[in-house]
Amino acid sequence: MTAVGIDAVEIWTGNLKLDLPGTFAPEKDEDPEKYTKGLGLNASSFPDSYEDIVTMGANAAHRLMERKGLEPDDIGRIDVATESAFDNSKPVSTYVAGCLEQVFEGDFHHANKGERKFACIAGTQSLDDAYNWIRAGRNRGRSALVIATDTALYARGDAGEATQGAGAVAMLISEDPDFVTLSTEQGYGSADETDFLKPNQQFPSVDGKRSVQVYLARMREALQDYEQVAGDVHPDDLSFIPFHTPFPGMVRKAGLLGYRHITRDTSFEDDLADEIGRQPRSEAFDTDEEFHDALREYMDALKDTDAYQEWYAETIDPTLTLSREVGNWYTGSVHIARISALKHALEAGRDMTGEQLLVGSYGSGAQAEIHSEIVQDGWEAEIESLNIDSQLEDRYDLSWADYEEVHDVHNHDMDVDVEEFTAPDSEFVFDGWGRMGERKYRYVE
Amino acid sequence: MTAVGIDAVEIWTGNLKLDLPGTFAPEKDEDPEKYTKGLGLNASSFPDSYEDIVTMGANAAHRLMERKGLEPDDIGRIDVATESAFDNSKPVSTYVAGCLEQVFEGDFHHANKGERKFACIAGTQSLDDAYNWIRAGRNRGRSALVIATDTALYARGDAGEATQGAGAVAMLISEDPDFVTLSTEQGYGSADETDFLKPNQQFPSVDGKRSVQVYLARMREALQDYEQVAGDVHPDDLSFIPFHTPFPGMVRKAGLLGYRHITRDTSFEDDLADEIGRQPRSEAFDTDEEFHDALREYMDALKDTDAYQEWYAETIDPTLTLSREVGNWYTGSVHIARISALKHALEAGRDMTGEQLLVGSYGSGAQAEIHSEIVQDGWEAEIESLNIDSQLEDRYDLSWADYEEVHDVHNHDMDVDVEEFTAPDSEFVFDGWGRMGERKYRYVE
Repeated sequence: MTAVGIDAVEIWTGNLKLDLPGTFAPEKDEDPEKYTKGLGLNASSFPDSYEDIVTMGANAAHRLMERKGLEPDDIGRIDVATESAFDNSKPVSTYVAGCLEQVFEGDFHHANKGERKFACIAGTQSLDDAYNWIRAGRNRGRSALVIATDTALYARGDAGEATQGAGAVAMLISEDPDFVTLSTEQGYGSADETDFLKPNQQFPSVDGKRSVQVYLARMREALQDYEQVAGDVHPDDLSFIPFHTPFPGMVRKAGLLGYRHITRDTSFEDDLADEIGRQPRSEAFDTDEEFHDALREYMDALKDTDAYQEWYAETIDPTLTLSREVGNWYTGSVHIARISALKHALEAGRDMTGEQLLVGSYGSGAQAEIHSEIVQDGWEAEIESLNIDSQLEDRYDLSWADYEEVHDVHNHDMDVDVEEFTAPDSEFVFDGWGRMGERKYRYVE
Repeated sequence: MTAVGIDAVEIWTGNLKLDLPGTFAPEKDEDPEKYTKGLGLNASSFPDSYEDIVTMGANAAHRLMERKGLEPDDIGRIDVATESAFDNSKPVSTYVAGCLEQVFEGDFHHANKGERKFACIAGTQSLDDAYNWIRAGRNRGRSALVIATDTALYARGDAGEATQGAGAVAMLISEDPDFVTLSTEQGYGSADETDFLKPNQQFPSVDGKRSVQVYLARMREALQDYEQVAGDVHPDDLSFIPFHTPFPGMVRKAGLLGYRHITRDTSFEDDLADEIGRQPRSEAFDTDEEFHDALREYMDALKDTDAYQEWYAETIDPTLTLSREVGNWYTGSVHIARISALKHALEAGRDMTGEQLLVGSYGSGAQAEIHSEIVQDGWEAEIESLNIDSQLEDRYDLSWADYEEVHDVHNHDMDVDVEEFTAPDSEFVFDGWGRMGERKYRYVE
């Protein structure tokens, strides 16, 4: 069976930055640690006035194709995952292809283009579609381009405003990939939930508390479902667990839940028994309430153990480094968690070839998916070629007044014009509206 | 290699009907034949005040699951294709699953749910995703439920108003299907076009003339691309060609173009040579303009030949019967064309088992896809079990005043309340909004 997976990745951050402890917290008259410690965020990436989901997606894809020496004829499928679409019929992938055709020889007329929507999980769903397309023998030797792109903006004053973000991840899906292979096995936890939605509106309505509960409940289901098909997950087998990261604080909760689950009935549980007891089992309790109280108590104790904290620092924390600096990228979020972990490994001089990642994707509404990935021997070259650090450093640091202006630019209900804060350089930019209300784009040398 | 395809289908029409020659034409002071002959349409299906894309999709899926004796555990994937979504984040498939969980034992927590958008081609794209998922070995013995559901409404007074429609098609995708198998081979013609779009708006902006040109150009590309991988298509090998049908008049143009293409260099061309000459070849002309003039002339003559008219009457016209009575169902349109053809064959007492269909899907924006299907020996039982005729007969016939009222009900920018025209019976209905703006549904016995 031919291995299929991610051959290459590129990211493109929005060109602006909102400093949370430095700019947002003072304006809100809040302790900066509410953001840095509570949410786990230092900054959000934000799109400049000439940026949107198309420019960021096309810029990431352009970098990826250039770097890998690809021509349009090498690509048989372009899927865009987003929950920031600006058209109810025409998919973003057609706009992205239109941009790329401005800079490459040839065209993408032979390529199946599409768009997927399911909150933040659609990026992983598009990855899976591409994997299935190749495994079904329909790719005719070509690769798929999967682009997860979002402007994760909230209404001004909304509780989610501190967790904004904007950026795109482009991924090339191929046979015998250089970066990671994907498992055939997948686990799902999916239910009709009202935790986060955008009914005929651009900015989300969020039930924050419910949203956290639903994330954890669906992720637990997905892990159980994954184990049914792939066998029990053992902590020793996993190098990193990249989760969907709406903000790092959410992943702290998911990490603890995951650790409890995968250490049950292992030597890890035995080793901790003297210190905090064994994990509560439902059959030992008369009522659900008593069981859940006992679980909560065990989790509180577990969180403070050295064993857990070491595991978290090694397996989860490295997945959060990028997220802390860019905020929530919605569909791209779990995919920058993967990059973040492998970048950490590269910087630590660790050999990751053959190592396993467990990837936990999530979308509100709600669905979690778990699959595993095996790191391939081109991972190091792939990570080395990314220019993430310079992208982050080059962002323009918004003042509060700047932020207020540029947020309005991206509000579909407002019609304001703001001078750009950065000078576009070798990138696609938004170039105004056409006669049918379509957005137009051009490449700036 | 295991065959994969459509095991079962069901349709659900909007419960109202707008009579085009009887009600629409007199109001517009137009010749009824403008609609019946020009567009090829007798009526549009329209949603009653308690219907929307969720109720129609869930009702079609419910009928399908009941008839096939399926439980939620048999379904591993629910994908909805639509360009009438009312939420920018939460997918319609979660609402549909929530409806179905009201009437079935068990739940769909194990099922991957998704939503695809690309104008009218997303239904076929979802079918393809389901096919690929099974062929990739990820279905764990389960089938996929693919639902194409749309309320194809235009702004009042828009040129497209006569081509409206509303309905859903539910399809079960399985290994060793009873109905049709899908070819691995696919042909694509896809370009970044501005023919029809909905930029931050519910109702479409359409460039009608461009839209027709783009449909034909992309379809020709898709056919050429299909032949590159599947070999030349020969008219003798095809029983029916279901096309995406925005209105039957469009398919008349596509049929002629397709016939010219697939008869080139065949005995069909030879047999017609005495009557209308041979097909013009570009190399015989000095300029593109001369070539295209000659092509146009050949096509005009071809259209009037007995050979073409007989072929059209046998191969294309039977695909249009349903469309004539229900209008454009967007994502479902090509899928009712397939049903229409096989219903015609059943009524004509024809044995279709083993026969080949060539299916031409299309979405504005724009992309065409061509694949072939082989009819399986359960096709007759499958078509016999549909209640299409009674669904169409039972529709309430809207007066002009009724139509004006109910159009407003479905306009997201208006907030009007209209008494329902029909009494819901054994179906899901819209049941008002929840506290976060989500739409709620209940089953009416």
